Amino acid sequence: MDKTIIDNVSLTDLKIIEHPKGDIFHALKKSEDSYKGFGEVYFSNINHNEIKGWKKHTKMTLNIVVPVGKIKFVIFDDRKESKTYNQFFEVILSTKNYKRLTIAPNLWVAFKGLEENNFLLNIADLEHNPTEGVNINLNEITYNWNN
Amino acid sequence: MDKTIIDNVSLTDLKIIEHPKGDIFHALKKSEDSYKGFGEVYFSNINHNEIKGWKKHTKMTLNIVVPVGKIKFVIFDDRKESKTYNQFFEVILSTKNYKRLTIAPNLWVAFKGLEENNFLLNIADLEHNPTEGVNINLNEITYNWNN
Repeated sequence: MDKTIIDNVSLTDLKIIEHPKGDIFHALKKSEDSYKGFGEVYFSNINHNEIKGWKKHTKMTLNIVVPVGKIKFVIFDDRKESKTYNQFFEVILSTKNYKRLTIAPNLWVAFKGLEENNFLLNIADLEHNPTEGVNINLNEITYNWNN
Repeated sequence: MDKTIIDNVSLTDLKIIEHPKGDIFHALKKSEDSYKGFGEVYFSNINHNEIKGWKKHTKMTLNIVVPVGKIKFVIFDDRKESKTYNQFFEVILSTKNYKRLTIAPNLWVAFKGLEENNFLLNIADLEHNPTEGVNINLNEITYNWNN
């Protein structure tokens, strides 16, 4: 079941299938609601205590899972027409809190690495296109990253 | 450029984009030849010195990358009509040898974890379906795993 947190963002519990030789971690199936089409799959590493962001995709839906380490994601909604206008959403993902974070276009996203080695997988519905993403400096949206 | 090793298997160099806060690792884009459709994405962990296999998918094409650790893959071709009938193919994947391994259906695959923590990502063109995969014991195809 998807749980909606801010409008057009969802967190979905994912299965971990235990196996004595090494576990299987689900990420995304075509039949799930979070699947919006296939464009590109890539990993992003985020070093300990580093923050990447803020970035807004204007067309791409992100489907993010964290198979290694622990990453804090913060989403900020500045869509004037949104029910959750001006709100932040925070979640920490890891294999201990193994969920998929689905983020629709037009939301600001930033994330921080909380362990030594942190990896996210993004299953995006579009291929990378530099004109589709907007980057601003971290201090342009005020958020207390030390919490 | 894809390099074909045994018939219907390919290895493709992937880009790692260096970044001071954490690198980006490409996996698969829709526009690449290896892309055969989207069914499911999952991770498989393989513990140190453990071997999973042999498994043959009768319909699924696998697109495998190894973002964490080091995994040895062995592919065995028992397709009588194949140019590479009765041949083995071996490759060790890691972030030091960062390539995508694309495996067409009807080939036997097994893999061994070479470090403490080893993860593969599989981008499959079909959702998991237990009737589509065939499992046999490791000793049913003779291969010297200690090499």
